[in-house]
Amino acid sequence: MSGIAQKLASNQKQVAISEFFEKNKHFLGFDSLARSLITAVKEAVDNALDACEEARILPTIKIQITKLDPKKDIIKLVVEDNGPGIPQKSIEKVFGQLLFGSRFHAIRQSRGQQGIGITGVVMYCQLTTGRTTHVRSKIATEPTAAFVDIGLDTRKNKATKANAGREIWYNEDGSSKEHGTEVTAQMKAKYQKGRQSVWQYLRMTSIVNPHAEIIFVDPEGEKHHWSRVTERLPTKVESIKPHPHGIELGQLQRMIAESNDLNLNHFLLNNFSGVTNRARKELCQAAELEGTRKMKTIKGDDIRNLLEAFQGERLFKGQPAKLLKPPTNCLSPIEEILIKKGLSKTIDSRFVTTLTRVPNVTQGNPFQVEVGLIFGGTMAGDKPVEILRFANRVPLMYQQGGCLLTKAIESVDWRQYGLEQAGGKGVPKGPAAILVHLASTNVQFTSEAKEALADNGEVMEEARKAMLEMGRGLRKHLEKKKKMAKTKEKFELINDILPAIAEKSAQLLDRPVPELAGSITKIMSAVISESTTVWNKETKMVDVDIVLFNYTSRARAYTILATWPEKSGATMESNETGGRKEALGVWAWKLEALQPGERKNITYSLRGLERGDWTDTEVLFRGSQDVIGATKMDEKFLQEIRRQEQLELDNVADEAEANNDVEQLEATPLEPVSEQHIPEPVVTPPEGQRTLFGGEN
Amino acid sequence: MSGIAQKLASNQKQVAISEFFEKNKHFLGFDSLARSLITAVKEAVDNALDACEEARILPTIKIQITKLDPKKDIIKLVVEDNGPGIPQKSIEKVFGQLLFGSRFHAIRQSRGQQGIGITGVVMYCQLTTGRTTHVRSKIATEPTAAFVDIGLDTRKNKATKANAGREIWYNEDGSSKEHGTEVTAQMKAKYQKGRQSVWQYLRMTSIVNPHAEIIFVDPEGEKHHWSRVTERLPTKVESIKPHPHGIELGQLQRMIAESNDLNLNHFLLNNFSGVTNRARKELCQAAELEGTRKMKTIKGDDIRNLLEAFQGERLFKGQPAKLLKPPTNCLSPIEEILIKKGLSKTIDSRFVTTLTRVPNVTQGNPFQVEVGLIFGGTMAGDKPVEILRFANRVPLMYQQGGCLLTKAIESVDWRQYGLEQAGGKGVPKGPAAILVHLASTNVQFTSEAKEALADNGEVMEEARKAMLEMGRGLRKHLEKKKKMAKTKEKFELINDILPAIAEKSAQLLDRPVPELAGSITKIMSAVISESTTVWNKETKMVDVDIVLFNYTSRARAYTILATWPEKSGATMESNETGGRKEALGVWAWKLEALQPGERKNITYSLRGLERGDWTDTEVLFRGSQDVIGATKMDEKFLQEIRRQEQLELDNVADEAEANNDVEQLEATPLEPVSEQHIPEPVVTPPEGQRTLFGGEN
Repeated sequence: MSGIAQKLASNQKQVAISEFFEKNKHFLGFDSLARSLITAVKEAVDNALDACEEARILPTIKIQITKLDPKKDIIKLVVEDNGPGIPQKSIEKVFGQLLFGSRFHAIRQSRGQQGIGITGVVMYCQLTTGRTTHVRSKIATEPTAAFVDIGLDTRKNKATKANAGREIWYNEDGSSKEHGTEVTAQMKAKYQKGRQSVWQYLRMTSIVNPHAEIIFVDPEGEKHHWSRVTERLPTKVESIKPHPHGIELGQLQRMIAESNDLNLNHFLLNNFSGVTNRARKELCQAAELEGTRKMKTIKGDDIRNLLEAFQGERLFKGQPAKLLKPPTNCLSPIEEILIKKGLSKTIDSRFVTTLTRVPNVTQGNPFQVEVGLIFGGTMAGDKPVEILRFANRVPLMYQQGGCLLTKAIESVDWRQYGLEQAGGKGVPKGPAAILVHLASTNVQFTSEAKEALADNGEVMEEARKAMLEMGRGLRKHLEKKKKMAKTKEKFELINDILPAIAEKSAQLLDRPVPELAGSITKIMSAVISESTTVWNKETKMVDVDIVLFNYTSRARAYTILATWPEKSGATMESNETGGRKEALGVWAWKLEALQPGERKNITYSLRGLERGDWTDTEVLFRGSQDVIGATKMDEKFLQEIRRQEQLELDNVADEAEANNDVEQLEATPLEPVSEQHIPEPVVTPPEGQRTLFGGEN
Repeated sequence: MSGIAQKLASNQKQVAISEFFEKNKHFLGFDSLARSLITAVKEAVDNALDACEEARILPTIKIQITKLDPKKDIIKLVVEDNGPGIPQKSIEKVFGQLLFGSRFHAIRQSRGQQGIGITGVVMYCQLTTGRTTHVRSKIATEPTAAFVDIGLDTRKNKATKANAGREIWYNEDGSSKEHGTEVTAQMKAKYQKGRQSVWQYLRMTSIVNPHAEIIFVDPEGEKHHWSRVTERLPTKVESIKPHPHGIELGQLQRMIAESNDLNLNHFLLNNFSGVTNRARKELCQAAELEGTRKMKTIKGDDIRNLLEAFQGERLFKGQPAKLLKPPTNCLSPIEEILIKKGLSKTIDSRFVTTLTRVPNVTQGNPFQVEVGLIFGGTMAGDKPVEILRFANRVPLMYQQGGCLLTKAIESVDWRQYGLEQAGGKGVPKGPAAILVHLASTNVQFTSEAKEALADNGEVMEEARKAMLEMGRGLRKHLEKKKKMAKTKEKFELINDILPAIAEKSAQLLDRPVPELAGSITKIMSAVISESTTVWNKETKMVDVDIVLFNYTSRARAYTILATWPEKSGATMESNETGGRKEALGVWAWKLEALQPGERKNITYSLRGLERGDWTDTEVLFRGSQDVIGATKMDEKFLQEIRRQEQLELDNVADEAEANNDVEQLEATPLEPVSEQHIPEPVVTPPEGQRTLFGGEN
């Protein structure tokens, strides 16, 4: 017994972070040989996309995979980008030192954050093949490219360097490259095809990075090319300061201890987002601290009180201090139209619906959920739907079951939206794919491999809401399709049967065959709308045609409404029917009375879009008689539109307020245009319209 | 454009490991408030169990949780153990420095490995409450205990110390404590009950640590006590050297670079397990390297060649060099009997089956799978079975869906073993709980939180095999139960109906009622076995009684066999029927002819067991007529027993060989006793035995 404690203690020693990750390389995504290759590609491509985005360059990324010795599973990977490049002296740290990077402390959306990824690749290559990783990089301000072989001294977490030098970097066409980085790595890995493959990772990357051009040469020499579908770079993101709601006590203690601010007032105004001058006053009073207190004097319980004021546990005049939401310019969502485009480009389908929720905040961190759903086409109907998960524009390929985003999908009862689902839980079945993207300043993964999101109530709720909303879109689509099919069937029946009956009756009674057109109208007893949305190659515009038939025996008056991509900056042209804006992205036309048997067309073109941007126009109506093929514009729909408008206005207001105009600014919500109701036409329901088909359909 | 690369690079800096984990505290299991508390308890208890095990102390661990301020979710946690204690100057490193520990490089089974756990708790407490963690520790060789308040300087990954001192540590009864450690922490956390709770974690811990006494005082002051059910400490584990099959190139390069060995021969013999003198020669020849080469001269391709020889890619005389398996004394399985005891103690059920597979090796790391299944009792029948996952004796409470062990359970078609399962995949339903334990020198988790095992083909295969084997046990049990129930029903029917028929017939024919005993025997036409296995309080032995009835009209001869816990060191006493060993854990009795209507008893007692150790004896038979209530001893059953025996012999041989007797030792497998077949009694099947109950059952 004696001395056992000392003996045990004497074996203890410090482990370097790089030794830790070398032993636990599966934490970083290097578990199987197949996954290791995907991880390596992912880290290199993510870095390239991040660097291009920060430098505002449209990325062109080339990936080449070669089998060096198929028997031994040794693979060579080359990833080249046209990013800004890395200055020579930074190369070794970026590639050969774990936890070294620029994005760890920055609060904004980025793919990489931890400074582990690419160094992990260098480490894995060294561990499995004993080889260093060759890096070549050129920055615009220098005439030549720097190159060097990088390894990792895992005992010290330092890079090892060899064969460093400079050279002119020639492109394939003989010109010299302006800027970019190229990584050449050798690793033990397996190339495979299928659902979890490099190809699939790149395909998914291209969906959520429509501004990127990606070229992939596979081990058989085949070239895969995902072209750029938009020249628009993602919105530039700005780093924001931490928001008081996301601060923990230890962090606040450290911020205060390390502060150089003159006093508490300055500290609050300088170091946080969402703290206006008014909020500063309220916080100080709630915490019972003088704003003029020197930072050094703020200790212990002072800090605790301040934190409680931050969290609304200490009140100012019975209320929590009124903080602004953090600004959301730290986020860069993909946006509906680009998701739609990306999906349409890569998956063949009939119906696409997408949705970008407005930003929300969890623990002081802004985040935003985007979803997309595609349905029909060539997808298999008897299998679970394909789930495409993304975080900060990076595809998540593994650990689907353990991911918050999957759980959000599984929590929805998809049966009510037209998909099969055993027991109303779990991944639904059907010819569909569901895309879900989380953009956040602080994506919480379950591990360093960044393949699954950890649980978070607020993110879950947002994702669920987005699914429900999207589900309603799918249901509408399926119902519309069904209704249209039914109406068509009815038409055909009437046109076949009625003349036959008429002829037979006439024959029996020895009378002439009667005129049927009026009767058919009476029997149909419906107003029908059809619309087409077509890309016009010549004009480079989207042509929309909405047609309305009145198959009833009375005159009808409607307001017809249609959705259009106003948010994406499209403009409406050749709209001869005129009309007016109903709400953001919704146009309205008031139609004069439509006589029995009459038809009317509404046509217009949309400028400023690209092919695939807008493929389906939702038609709505206001009026008491149903329109088959259109959706009744109800208060719910309107409220949702208004809510979204209001939220966007709020954000604008918040940002304006954050820009210091605080005390004056009163956010006056714009009166939504839709409030000015167009009086409904009074239409008496026609009598005696019951038909042999069982009513008004 | 110009200067963007430099600008981006200038923001880059090194992040400390503690900053990394502070930001990513959810990697360590601190995501929700409820889970954070479980994580903290887990880390403290794991440390206590590991320290006690290393110091060969029977652990007594007290956990107390108090709500300091229920409104603010502030909780005080105290964990006290009777471990060896920590020397004063080591305390700050153990509790205040990440990646500091003794087990990182050691190849042996232990709960903690990374040196993160308890420091993570200190970090979390500091972050959420701003408080330090109070540690008190006493080692046996010093008269007083050391105490100190520990915090963490996350920018430097160093401990901060305050209020250090020494004191006499008094137990509750006023005596002074000999040795142990006590941790008092304050954290933001939530105490909750249910499936994922501190209580459940401790209950599961007690199942797989039957040698531990655990006392838990919950926030309501209620005391929960899991008593020690065995005085036997887990097998002492020894650190082993790495096995050549588990070495990667980078690691080998480093070992060679850092080697102080005289030459390659010494290097191979000194640094690896499984390398005998013969293996050393073969490796050198396969790698085409002279054994006398100085270590400094071995570089580049030499190392690559040596690794290829390690991996059997370079051959010696057309064969891979013959390496021994790594020794398995680095593992400490719980063992079947203790699992059974642990399960019986904590879950009320009717049937328990357990299984410890023999050790196997993956990538040079020894591992061993153990499983247990309990069925019946008060468990709900219409819900998914409870899954109890463990790794190195630590319960895994989260991420069940993403864990290899769960996947192994889901991959089995449980329908064939009597459980409900939709589509033959997924978690089965039924009144059962399945326990699965992986013991390994290198448990690969999916993240630092150590809640789910990462994918590994070999571990998966072992776990699956164990499930299948255990499933067969369950099926047998259910079939036996069903058969016995049927037989009982038949008996009752015959005893009710036959006399009634006889009486009625006699009455009608005006004859006397006939004697029925012989007829009943004829109709039953079966040999029936029943057994009881009972704990005898007075003798402290398990009494087994096997009874055999011959309800047929002919004499019958059988060999009756029974399983018994020979492996666990039990001895058989008062076995008056004699018999002989059939195989390890199987005893056989050859019975003389059993006359029609005759019964025979086999009785014996088992010494050296504790209550709950052995609750069910499996009875088998050899003979041509079926015995209801016993299992036919077939070749398959025998082969499995022999295979297990052989594997154990191999291990013994391997270990002997590893002890250097290499060139001489020829492992002569013992001739299994069961080979010397007892001649089967020739029994002609009786004629005319078809009865109104449809034959021989």
